[in-house]
Amino acid sequence: MKRVRPLPSYLVQRYKGWKATKYQDNQAWYRHLAQEGQHPRAMIICCCDSRVHVTAIFGADQGEFFLHRNIANLVPPFTPDGQQHGTSAAVEYAVTALKVAHVIVLGHSNCGGVRGCDAMCSGDAPELNDKTSFVGRWMDILRPGYERVKKIKDTEERVAALEKQAVLVSLENLVTFPFVAEAIESGHLTLHGLWHDIGEGEIEHYVPEEGGFVTV
Amino acid sequence: MKRVRPLPSYLVQRYKGWKATKYQDNQAWYRHLAQEGQHPRAMIICCCDSRVHVTAIFGADQGEFFLHRNIANLVPPFTPDGQQHGTSAAVEYAVTALKVAHVIVLGHSNCGGVRGCDAMCSGDAPELNDKTSFVGRWMDILRPGYERVKKIKDTEERVAALEKQAVLVSLENLVTFPFVAEAIESGHLTLHGLWHDIGEGEIEHYVPEEGGFVTV
Amino acid sequence: MKRVRPLPSYLVQRYKGWKATKYQDNQAWYRHLAQEGQHPRAMIICCCDSRVHVTAIFGADQGEFFLHRNIANLVPPFTPDGQQHGTSAAVEYAVTALKVAHVIVLGHSNCGGVRGCDAMCSGDAPELNDKTSFVGRWMDILRPGYERVKKIKDTEERVAALEKQAVLVSLENLVTFPFVAEAIESGHLTLHGLWHDIGEGEIEHYVPEEGGFVTV
Amino acid sequence: MKRVRPLPSYLVQRYKGWKATKYQDNQAWYRHLAQEGQHPRAMIICCCDSRVHVTAIFGADQGEFFLHRNIANLVPPFTPDGQQHGTSAAVEYAVTALKVAHVIVLGHSNCGGVRGCDAMCSGDAPELNDKTSFVGRWMDILRPGYERVKKIKDTEERVAALEKQAVLVSLENLVTFPFVAEAIESGHLTLHGLWHDIGEGEIEHYVPEEGGFVTV
Repeated sequence: MKRVRPLPSYLVQRYKGWKATKYQDNQAWYRHLAQEGQHPRAMIICCCDSRVHVTAIFGADQGEFFLHRNIANLVPPFTPDGQQHGTSAAVEYAVTALKVAHVIVLGHSNCGGVRGCDAMCSGDAPELNDKTSFVGRWMDILRPGYERVKKIKDTEERVAALEKQAVLVSLENLVTFPFVAEAIESGHLTLHGLWHDIGEGEIEHYVPEEGGFVTV
Repeated sequence: MKRVRPLPSYLVQRYKGWKATKYQDNQAWYRHLAQEGQHPRAMIICCCDSRVHVTAIFGADQGEFFLHRNIANLVPPFTPDGQQHGTSAAVEYAVTALKVAHVIVLGHSNCGGVRGCDAMCSGDAPELNDKTSFVGRWMDILRPGYERVKKIKDTEERVAALEKQAVLVSLENLVTFPFVAEAIESGHLTLHGLWHDIGEGEIEHYVPEEGGFVTV
Repeated sequence: MKRVRPLPSYLVQRYKGWKATKYQDNQAWYRHLAQEGQHPRAMIICCCDSRVHVTAIFGADQGEFFLHRNIANLVPPFTPDGQQHGTSAAVEYAVTALKVAHVIVLGHSNCGGVRGCDAMCSGDAPELNDKTSFVGRWMDILRPGYERVKKIKDTEERVAALEKQAVLVSLENLVTFPFVAEAIESGHLTLHGLWHDIGEGEIEHYVPEEGGFVTV
Repeated sequence: MKRVRPLPSYLVQRYKGWKATKYQDNQAWYRHLAQEGQHPRAMIICCCDSRVHVTAIFGADQGEFFLHRNIANLVPPFTPDGQQHGTSAAVEYAVTALKVAHVIVLGHSNCGGVRGCDAMCSGDAPELNDKTSFVGRWMDILRPGYERVKKIKDTEERVAALEKQAVLVSLENLVTFPFVAEAIESGHLTLHGLWHDIGEGEIEHYVPEEGGFVTV
């Protein structure tokens, strides 16, 4: 473990600033949360991308959202094969233990993972097809989405459509989990699909009645 | 997809507030980020827990941190078996594509996933041993950590020690990835282990010279 | 009970509108709240005045704030005499059962109760001195505040000062409750005093370091 | 007063959002309300419970409802003994000074105060019988209601019936106030009893002709 280093000083400074201000203001609440446990209202599944600042966009404070972040905000289908499925574990914990009321899948523009998937499926990124490519194998989840948009000739247009497919495929996969389907049926859970334009700050949500994504 | 609903109004209101204030203030930067791509300085791996507000603690702004969040901030060992490994994909993308300078593993107090792992390994949660338990199979990653702390008799003390093992096991697993080990060797990457006390607002970091966690 | 009438139709219409929109959007969350119980972060004590729209000002959604509203946002001193004390009961429930992190006393401009107290103490409203005046006896709680501002000659100025005394006297009385004092001492509760200008939309908060109320 | 703290930052943010949007939109009306005084149409008496969002349900805007909120929406009987009666003061002010047209008592499901009363009267919560229990003494108001439902064996069923008794007892007590009885007799005031199901979003109102509560 000699390869591990102390916290970089620029982060020490920021942490000390938080401790002296926001923590001081909210100490009682944070102690309450520590002792009484979390009761988040929603689970948000979004991309690891550093430009998707979901806590800022939704004014999140401590205790409000159970956040799972992975490459391209993907949820794989229900596969109870005894292997390690981090995303499925997060969904299981949120829905069955925390009983969140909403699962929100938030996609975004300029997604590197989605662009890589498009390149891989188009034959332009053979290295992603390699068995040892973790990113490639993870993006396999989005292949059914690529099949639906592959007829779009223009690359930028196709990639943008694929970003929204990343949301839709995840929503479709979510309902393959029996505990998700049951919570929806009994009126204890709703699903929501969003796509965020990083540069323009827009959010579109999927509205089934409209058959597609609509600006909020 | 008729089970999908529009964005709840309380989140619409918050988003509109962000759009009218923070987005307006930073539009030029957000457009820059959209066009020029992300260049995050660090990857942070932390828990999905709603009480771990990592963006607040480190004053994160858009574009700064590549964030992967899963149950109990775990990284599995390098296993290039062609299966879907969301965490390994995130690490691969951060280190090989984004070339982040730091990978920070942030554990925390009062972790439900770690407590579940302790119960499972102690024989008190047989349901987590079930092949179909996604949380149980995910927490298998932490079993080597349990082996090191199982001699601690007091449950609260043992669970607290296991929370720090969740950080250490992840750091140990990180260096099993060849691209991680290479980036460290060549001086392009450092690893960092943190543990956050939710109620008291403290952060401890792992300092190898001290042989353990030390308050920042 | 023949004096009781059905709900007026204008309220039926509004309720049906809420049911068809906001309730539909949040049904899963409301069912969660019904089954899992409330976990409000703060108790807010404010006036019954129809112009103090505290839920709008703080963007309150269901489950966030435990709200006690009485005439002039007053808290009486700790008096465990076995009589009925509605405000003391509300404080007791919030602090000991719900373990809220904040108790916020919100006063406001143009307060009819405070103006009545000023008139009563100045000798201009003898009817409020009557033993049978519930408003008069309730406003007796604010008499210690009147003593501190009675030297102010200008009536408007004196009434405005008395509105802030209504906040300060309540805060002083709050710490006479042993369970409030204990929760503060142990770092689980903080008190906050606010005054709201209805016409201008301003909020001032009491900042002890400044020795008075300061615009937020 | 050194125990008092400034307003927590998450509420500052929400307040600033309100100021920049809703206040700006309605400034003229809010200034009007400040200068001309309030003229609310109805008084609503409801529980402090954070899940009873009465302003949302009835689409309340500033100036519309005089709101009194206490534990379990109780009104004590007319008792002009010179002691402090916060609820009686609020009723007196609403009916004699503001001359509201309606007094609405709104009960609700999952009420912690009512459940506590049931436990106290059933002998299962001796601590609530203590003279120093403010919640216990306040819930004494509901004892006549318990007498009417105590023959119901099933606890959940009995508590639900007691929630509606909290509305009926309050309505009965309201008419013991001479000024309330007079306003009703002269046709200037009507009383209304409601019960709200938090999880299902339903409202039932008391309809004397039906001899009970009926879904709106």
